[in-house]
Amino acid sequence: MKAAVMRGGALVVDDIPEPRPQAGQVVARTLACGICGSDLHTLHHADKMVEMSSLGGSPMPGIEAEVMDLARDVVMGHEFCAEVVEVGPNVGNCQVGDIVVSMPIALDPAGIHPIGYSNEYPGGYAEYLALSDMLALKVPNGLDPHRAALTEPMAVGHHAVERSWAGPGDAAIVLGCGPVGLAIVAALRLKGVEVIVAADFSPARRALAATMGATEVVDPRHEPAIEAWRRVDGRRRLVLFEAIGVPGILDAAMADAPRGAQVLVAGVCMEADTVRPMVGIMKELNVQFVLGYDPAEFATSLRRIAEGEVDVTPLITGRVGIDGIPQAFADLADPEAHAKILVTP
Amino acid sequence: MKAAVMRGGALVVDDIPEPRPQAGQVVARTLACGICGSDLHTLHHADKMVEMSSLGGSPMPGIEAEVMDLARDVVMGHEFCAEVVEVGPNVGNCQVGDIVVSMPIALDPAGIHPIGYSNEYPGGYAEYLALSDMLALKVPNGLDPHRAALTEPMAVGHHAVERSWAGPGDAAIVLGCGPVGLAIVAALRLKGVEVIVAADFSPARRALAATMGATEVVDPRHEPAIEAWRRVDGRRRLVLFEAIGVPGILDAAMADAPRGAQVLVAGVCMEADTVRPMVGIMKELNVQFVLGYDPAEFATSLRRIAEGEVDVTPLITGRVGIDGIPQAFADLADPEAHAKILVTP
Repeated sequence: MKAAVMRGGALVVDDIPEPRPQAGQVVARTLACGICGSDLHTLHHADKMVEMSSLGGSPMPGIEAEVMDLARDVVMGHEFCAEVVEVGPNVGNCQVGDIVVSMPIALDPAGIHPIGYSNEYPGGYAEYLALSDMLALKVPNGLDPHRAALTEPMAVGHHAVERSWAGPGDAAIVLGCGPVGLAIVAALRLKGVEVIVAADFSPARRALAATMGATEVVDPRHEPAIEAWRRVDGRRRLVLFEAIGVPGILDAAMADAPRGAQVLVAGVCMEADTVRPMVGIMKELNVQFVLGYDPAEFATSLRRIAEGEVDVTPLITGRVGIDGIPQAFADLADPEAHAKILVTP
Repeated sequence: MKAAVMRGGALVVDDIPEPRPQAGQVVARTLACGICGSDLHTLHHADKMVEMSSLGGSPMPGIEAEVMDLARDVVMGHEFCAEVVEVGPNVGNCQVGDIVVSMPIALDPAGIHPIGYSNEYPGGYAEYLALSDMLALKVPNGLDPHRAALTEPMAVGHHAVERSWAGPGDAAIVLGCGPVGLAIVAALRLKGVEVIVAADFSPARRALAATMGATEVVDPRHEPAIEAWRRVDGRRRLVLFEAIGVPGILDAAMADAPRGAQVLVAGVCMEADTVRPMVGIMKELNVQFVLGYDPAEFATSLRRIAEGEVDVTPLITGRVGIDGIPQAFADLADPEAHAKILVTP
């Protein structure tokens, strides 16, 4: 099958073997797969990704988690919607023809494999995927598979908000309006957070933030987010969501935060970073780091899209075939041009 | 009156004017005052303290908080027990002869003053103190004033535990068994935390930790605290209390912490510090910074000592007069020799 393969630090379009379903697995045809910022980062800093993935240990204690070997091929793509074309033994959930999404995890006797960051399980930048039957969720309501493919990134934002202190009537600042920041904005709106200040240098991203539910959008070059919050609110309990992930942002968010506030770290900063603990101490700040989502949050994310609680259509700014993936990776460098590009093999 | 004055970066014993009570204030004779590690730090890095105190803003919004001027005299000492000798106008709480403790804060028309870190309000390293009548708490049960003076440092530990996730049946690691770490150990025991692993290089400090309630004490040169926790427990929800406050400890605590754990920062690290955000992200850690206590926690701390719920006697390792304060500051450098030295003017 055709796939965009990460090989030697580059993306090359090549033919690779089609996956076969093991017991408890199905094979599905990729209908749409979002290109994630983590994939861009992985292409250029894959060694760092491998190093970092060893820091957390296995998410399922007692089950070994595969860490990808960069000397071998990897097919990325973990934000997918696919149509089941073949079922393996011991499959009771999916049937051929089902349109499904899934957390990007595959289980087999060797352990747990991160689909899209694995040597064994190609992700959605290929024509076919092997999925665990028990993790596949049928796409309801006749939802367009292109929108269903946004389940995964929207779940990231939903999880970040669920892990935060933000609740109905509170206030939030979202630093950075990439796909993660935008998913956080959408989840904050659904949570009933009344003041949502979103900051980004890009006018296009700010416009998307307003569409997703930000009540105030600012260009931090003209007005820092914390000043905008003071202007429009300044009283409610505040959570600052850091969705940028570069060195210096955590310390800056801590410096901005009012006494007793929470800083929610959703950005993925892979470098060592400098903070001033006294800033946290003097204001008794709480810093919550988050990653991913749990199965219930993933299912909620799908339901919200399917039931129209959140409209992800504006986030989809481009579509490419597998041949177009390398160019799409380059195009995503421009925040004015794109938010989410879907691969549609 | 006689006082140990911080002047030009040194402690000098000198005569200074006695305080006079303003409206709502009393003057009290110092019976005992603990020497705090923050005072040692302030003597050598007072400029840093002043810089840092501006980071948090006023603890009472709308009321100006005094920041000490290092060009003028400061009399430190904020862990005091004192006998009321004079009452000012509009005093309804205290009477002459009352033995009291107080949060080290004085209110007057100019604003809020940190007793012991103020140019206007000498602390307990002097013979007399001016206190706000409404903040003074009468020492009950005939409690020895020397033990009552431990109300303040024990409140710091109580507050840290209250702000943490640690609850009955949980597990905790306490890194550093100085007075703050020991107060945390005592508060954890009273909270019903079942596994309390305390770590310190000093055998004397480890012995004190065991006395205060640690269920396991380790010398980190021989067994890291996290390995001791795995040996004795390894299953309960864990909070790691960082009570050391030097660069590198926060990152080390984050690296040690298991997935989903909380790191409670009670140590006061005044330098910029380096952390690896990915360590926090991969394990979804929560980092809570704390400082001080609230009035209810301060009152609880006094009650616990007065009712014998916590015995602070072992923490008191020395007593000196005002003349002996400079030498006591030097003696406290040796953790084998001392935990808490009381000034008894």
